[in-house]
Amino acid sequence: MRLSRYFLPVLKETPADAQIASHRLMLRAGMIRQQSAGIYSWLPLGYKVLKKIENIVHEEQQRVGHIPLLMPTLQSADLWRESGRYDAYGDEMLRISDRHGRDMLYGPTNEEMITDIFRAHVGSYKDLPLTLYHIQWKFRDEVRPRFGVMRGREFLMKDGYNFDLTKEDAMHAYNRHLVSYLRTYERMGLQAIPMRADSGPIGGDDTHEFLVLADTGESEVFYDKGVTDIKLGARDIDPYNVDECRSVMEEFTSLYARTDETHDAAEFAKVPEDRQMTARGIEVGQIFYFGTKYSESMGAEVVGQDGKKTPVHMGSHGIGVSRLLGALIEANHDDKGIIWPEGVTPFHVGIVNLKQGDDEADAACEALYKSFQALGLDPLYDDRKERAGGKFATMDLIGLPWRITVGPRGLKNGVVEVTSRRSGESEEMTPEQAVEKVAKIYADL
Amino acid sequence: MRLSRYFLPVLKETPADAQIASHRLMLRAGMIRQQSAGIYSWLPLGYKVLKKIENIVHEEQQRVGHIPLLMPTLQSADLWRESGRYDAYGDEMLRISDRHGRDMLYGPTNEEMITDIFRAHVGSYKDLPLTLYHIQWKFRDEVRPRFGVMRGREFLMKDGYNFDLTKEDAMHAYNRHLVSYLRTYERMGLQAIPMRADSGPIGGDDTHEFLVLADTGESEVFYDKGVTDIKLGARDIDPYNVDECRSVMEEFTSLYARTDETHDAAEFAKVPEDRQMTARGIEVGQIFYFGTKYSESMGAEVVGQDGKKTPVHMGSHGIGVSRLLGALIEANHDDKGIIWPEGVTPFHVGIVNLKQGDDEADAACEALYKSFQALGLDPLYDDRKERAGGKFATMDLIGLPWRITVGPRGLKNGVVEVTSRRSGESEEMTPEQAVEKVAKIYADL
Repeated sequence: MRLSRYFLPVLKETPADAQIASHRLMLRAGMIRQQSAGIYSWLPLGYKVLKKIENIVHEEQQRVGHIPLLMPTLQSADLWRESGRYDAYGDEMLRISDRHGRDMLYGPTNEEMITDIFRAHVGSYKDLPLTLYHIQWKFRDEVRPRFGVMRGREFLMKDGYNFDLTKEDAMHAYNRHLVSYLRTYERMGLQAIPMRADSGPIGGDDTHEFLVLADTGESEVFYDKGVTDIKLGARDIDPYNVDECRSVMEEFTSLYARTDETHDAAEFAKVPEDRQMTARGIEVGQIFYFGTKYSESMGAEVVGQDGKKTPVHMGSHGIGVSRLLGALIEANHDDKGIIWPEGVTPFHVGIVNLKQGDDEADAACEALYKSFQALGLDPLYDDRKERAGGKFATMDLIGLPWRITVGPRGLKNGVVEVTSRRSGESEEMTPEQAVEKVAKIYADL
Repeated sequence: MRLSRYFLPVLKETPADAQIASHRLMLRAGMIRQQSAGIYSWLPLGYKVLKKIENIVHEEQQRVGHIPLLMPTLQSADLWRESGRYDAYGDEMLRISDRHGRDMLYGPTNEEMITDIFRAHVGSYKDLPLTLYHIQWKFRDEVRPRFGVMRGREFLMKDGYNFDLTKEDAMHAYNRHLVSYLRTYERMGLQAIPMRADSGPIGGDDTHEFLVLADTGESEVFYDKGVTDIKLGARDIDPYNVDECRSVMEEFTSLYARTDETHDAAEFAKVPEDRQMTARGIEVGQIFYFGTKYSESMGAEVVGQDGKKTPVHMGSHGIGVSRLLGALIEANHDDKGIIWPEGVTPFHVGIVNLKQGDDEADAACEALYKSFQALGLDPLYDDRKERAGGKFATMDLIGLPWRITVGPRGLKNGVVEVTSRRSGESEEMTPEQAVEKVAKIYADL
């Protein structure tokens, strides 16, 4: 993309009402615009990152065999009356009446609707196991929305639901979700630690939250220092292998790691003192096993091998897709702006022309631009007639991990400058070497 | 995808309340499920086609330089009070009150919000031209929703908005949209004819609708037979070239083609009698130029080269993304089911194993399945232990354009059968030739 043709409305002033770094930086970098309290437009740069995150979530869900569909945003109140949650849910549910006076709601989650789909179409144990998921906009009418997309009212979430014949099968689905979530976050360059959690209004027995450590997190967390050393890395885990998934689950959850909601001081005291850590965390996902709670109340049954009807065992599993942008920025920024991990950066590389209008500099930038595109990479070329200082400030603010600076002086020696946003370090090399270096970084991801 | 692991709830009976072919077939093929009047879940197969259509729309918008963003589904009523449309819009607007009693609405379109984004961030003629678009769920509270996704209440639409300094520039944007829309529909295997239209509640001067001819269309259309012979084909049109875009516009709109809303019998009589055609059509898109209607009422102005403020010239342009599934099926089906054009088919090819459990047949199917995947194609492998008749009926119903049938008898002679869903013709060849044949069809798209 050529910046002269893009829509990137960066702000020079710091917005007064934004309390945390991610909210401030998303506004300043022209990623979002607030349209009402807790409701945002995703401007082009923000939309691009949102899509990248959404794509990673889709890929990792499908890699483990989960099947995508899409449920609507508006739901009938009747479904929620069946489960008993219509009255129980409280003021966070946005209740709507249509022109015929029918009670509707803007879905805050989809247990009822997916159970309805299941009971309408599945009747035999032979169709199990089954895990369906979607990525759709949800609404929760928070009393006091704040922190930008971290606690908005209209938000994008991946929610998935497993249907299994037995508790044992459902626990495999639970473990498989844990594996897929770990890989999802790692691909984004995030460490999210599974912590034992409270089930809240969804109800359930087993549940873990995934927390990203950050000073601005809403939860206090307590953990054994050892948990931060465990990584999934490049391990190849077979999602259909029960033992493999269980052993990953055990590895990642055996050390102490809890939020303030489930913290147990006596248990924590057993952790060696030099490994007892307290910090703040941002919740970016949660997995639940809730058994037959919905299948019983809503009649989601299958005929088993013995010919008898039995309610299915279910779980639900969520990733806060729009919230992840906030979490990513909280965990990756400095005084100058955002520092995107390579896995989610909106553009792979920025090209800064120090002297727009200079034939040689223009030609060198065009050549770089086209070389990256030919390799399937997405460069952002700052081709505006602006001062170098302004161009650098914009690139630093929007946080592309790699910048190539092109100017007449360097070109006289046949070189351009390649700068890492994270380390701030620069290196001179030929344009060809610059393309090769950046391309290799993305090829190795 | 292996069918044994997929969720494809096909129906044997024909749903009683579905009046038109596309609605019937989408229900029967397990593509959608109605959740409330005019509100659907997109089951896995339907979701897959929806995504394909959405991707084509994205690609063709970005090919001509339009910039994607994403506005929220819920909007503040205040914005619509500024333009005067909050009261004017009537009962089709779903009005909502949040927990604090603030007036909101589920956006039926986005002229107000995009104008708000523009006026907040753009102030100079130097930032023009600019075209922003999004693909987002909309809601129109139809009195009597019907025809499945063709006239639903919650529907997915691409809406784009151009901002230009002069009427002349805005008309270029109008023509460029026409070009991009023509290519969008052609890539889906659809002929959509631009017809002069009424502007309706959006307001505007120049507007064309795009209509797909189909017996079940909601509009009566009148046209010169010659319009159906004009195709964009493989022409390479520069979206920044004003004359090129204008000449495409003129070519596609000079012959008579109108809906009943704008039909002019006297004009139509001038068309040679043997070329006067009457038919029915389904609207799948519309482009508008409406000048300064919103920019004046909402203060979207830029400072021109002369230093004076001037309201921008705007247009809005829509494609009915979810509705296109209905239109595609209306135009592509037979007694047995859907016949997907290659450009939008949910799976590229179906593999039918006539004798699941037979070592040789299973191995041949696995090899075909993996060969297609290695080529980046997406096969659906019917690996269920079902009778051949049932497998064929499912494949015909869901409409994959190509089917490969594998059975012990053919394998003895080293061949499988390749069948075209559209022509019904079958050909025997080696498995390697079958892969090559199907791969070539998609490579040539």
